[in-house]
Amino acid sequence: MTPMGEFDLIRQHFWRVVAARADGSGVLLGNGDDCALLAPAPGTVLAVSSDMLVAGRHFLPDVDPEALGHKALAVNLSDLAAMGARPLAFTLALALPAPDAAWLQALARGLLALADVHGCALVGGDTTAGPLTLCLTVFGEVPLGQASRRDAARVGDDVWVSGTLGDARVGLDIALGRRAPGAWPDPALVTHVVQRLHRPTPRVALGLALRGLIHAAADVSDGLLADLGHILAASGVAARLDVEALLASQAVHAALRALPLPDVLSCVLAGGDDYELVFTAAPGQRAAILRAAEQAATPVTRIGTIVAGPPAAHPLADGAARVQLCDARGHPYPLPPGVALRGFDHFATMPT
Amino acid sequence: MTPMGEFDLIRQHFWRVVAARADGSGVLLGNGDDCALLAPAPGTVLAVSSDMLVAGRHFLPDVDPEALGHKALAVNLSDLAAMGARPLAFTLALALPAPDAAWLQALARGLLALADVHGCALVGGDTTAGPLTLCLTVFGEVPLGQASRRDAARVGDDVWVSGTLGDARVGLDIALGRRAPGAWPDPALVTHVVQRLHRPTPRVALGLALRGLIHAAADVSDGLLADLGHILAASGVAARLDVEALLASQAVHAALRALPLPDVLSCVLAGGDDYELVFTAAPGQRAAILRAAEQAATPVTRIGTIVAGPPAAHPLADGAARVQLCDARGHPYPLPPGVALRGFDHFATMPT
Repeated sequence: MTPMGEFDLIRQHFWRVVAARADGSGVLLGNGDDCALLAPAPGTVLAVSSDMLVAGRHFLPDVDPEALGHKALAVNLSDLAAMGARPLAFTLALALPAPDAAWLQALARGLLALADVHGCALVGGDTTAGPLTLCLTVFGEVPLGQASRRDAARVGDDVWVSGTLGDARVGLDIALGRRAPGAWPDPALVTHVVQRLHRPTPRVALGLALRGLIHAAADVSDGLLADLGHILAASGVAARLDVEALLASQAVHAALRALPLPDVLSCVLAGGDDYELVFTAAPGQRAAILRAAEQAATPVTRIGTIVAGPPAAHPLADGAARVQLCDARGHPYPLPPGVALRGFDHFATMPT
Repeated sequence: MTPMGEFDLIRQHFWRVVAARADGSGVLLGNGDDCALLAPAPGTVLAVSSDMLVAGRHFLPDVDPEALGHKALAVNLSDLAAMGARPLAFTLALALPAPDAAWLQALARGLLALADVHGCALVGGDTTAGPLTLCLTVFGEVPLGQASRRDAARVGDDVWVSGTLGDARVGLDIALGRRAPGAWPDPALVTHVVQRLHRPTPRVALGLALRGLIHAAADVSDGLLADLGHILAASGVAARLDVEALLASQAVHAALRALPLPDVLSCVLAGGDDYELVFTAAPGQRAAILRAAEQAATPVTRIGTIVAGPPAAHPLADGAARVQLCDARGHPYPLPPGVALRGFDHFATMPT
């Protein structure tokens, strides 16, 4: 064996002992065999999501490895949150140019700290030499029939969004030197947006609290219009968004209010990397949703209404055109020049 | 959208419609939502394995994409086979330098052809720009308590291996130009070893047929000594291997018999990339195991015996030293000079 071979590396940084629950469900076998063994709790099914993060594409090569560990798991937990699933376990596949103990230790610290918060066990994976790449697959439990799917929006539903939109895009612009932090008199606002980029908070608690109250949901990773668009295309509906009310709402953070209007619109409607939830629910659930949000300590904002639309299209179809941007009087909202509304596309828009 | 954006690409090459089984188990929701939803059949648990394949490390950058698709899934199915799990579904995360429709079409063809053979549904994943990397996570069903774990070998067990060992290593040497194919009078032998490298056959049918008959199992991906070593370390036992009988057995393919003895030993004992199963079972099961192997159309060979050994160590500990190499009389087998027995290590031994 080399001084730091593949197995040493896993043992040293990523090993966790796991145990099944008292009722025999959960993680029956973790790391160290050909497969992990998972048994979803009785009455639940397993929600599964995979995300790959590539250096220079999803994160800067000189990123703080602890923040990278946090973010790699957070973006996957965000997918579980969108389905209303409770995190159970994850696998990690990692390609590294060379084993670097300090770097790996920090990566593991960020990853496992967030995993511990959510009781999400690391149950296996792979480690290899190669260009820096992380691929996580997460597993969550959701009661049969209660998953919030993208194809479940109904005409008349409210459209809601959690937290604030566009912050991470502003943080990215600052991190890339495209926007000078001097625009903000309060340095705490700069810290906020950069934190939102590097350490997103997956809305797991909100997803769980909303179980049974909502119809459709998606996480906002590619921008509000793109991800709401997927719900609309899959459900065969459209949506009206009151842009003026949205801009005035708590869904737009104070940090964005220092920016010119076209920039605010670009970031809020199509920023990407928000890891908020966009969801739809019957108007009769408004009070219950606000209580659930309070219970989950996550603000939610009602931003529009589901209306009739073209028949359901392919779930991966671009549905952003189904979003009608309106002003306070219900008339079409005239987008000022300079707004960039394109959804995030990994082959088109990311800086390399 | 760009002419070939992320979602177009998935839709065009990797989209499959999936449906749950009549009893409501299986894949409840596939591609196109934040998560896939899986419900293991009643009485079963989910076996999960992830593998990452990096260009220049696990495959040559100019590899035939159809063969790559086959191999990427095959190596993951091999992990399911080792647990005795029946393939259910998989996710694919793919980083690509640039979208290339013909290349992707061929990759998908190889991947989905093997998936169809095993009824294994593609249920999600991720696609991004980046250095060519594939990460698959596979899911299989195994009846509760019937998974063949690495820590279950018992003193007195026979040690068995499926198929033939070392072929892929010889194929790799030929593919890399390290060994001239002229050494073989019969070109079919060269074709065989190169095929074994590029298109391994996961021993899924054998893994299923052996359910309930065997104790411990592992797939041979890093070399016989390394992978049997993991069983021995996890089980707290040792093994005696009759090397002379092994070399004379059907577990060594005719293609290897043209090589010098040290090369044969290196390839058979530590070649890597075999994707065979090594397993242990009580001697009373010999007839049943041979019947199961016949049923699965996969030859198996008895190659040794489990004996008492040091206490169980970490499941990822190097257990190769627990394998005692013996001659036909039970004396230590003297390894000739020039044998390289090091287990495969992704940070140590692969050509870049």
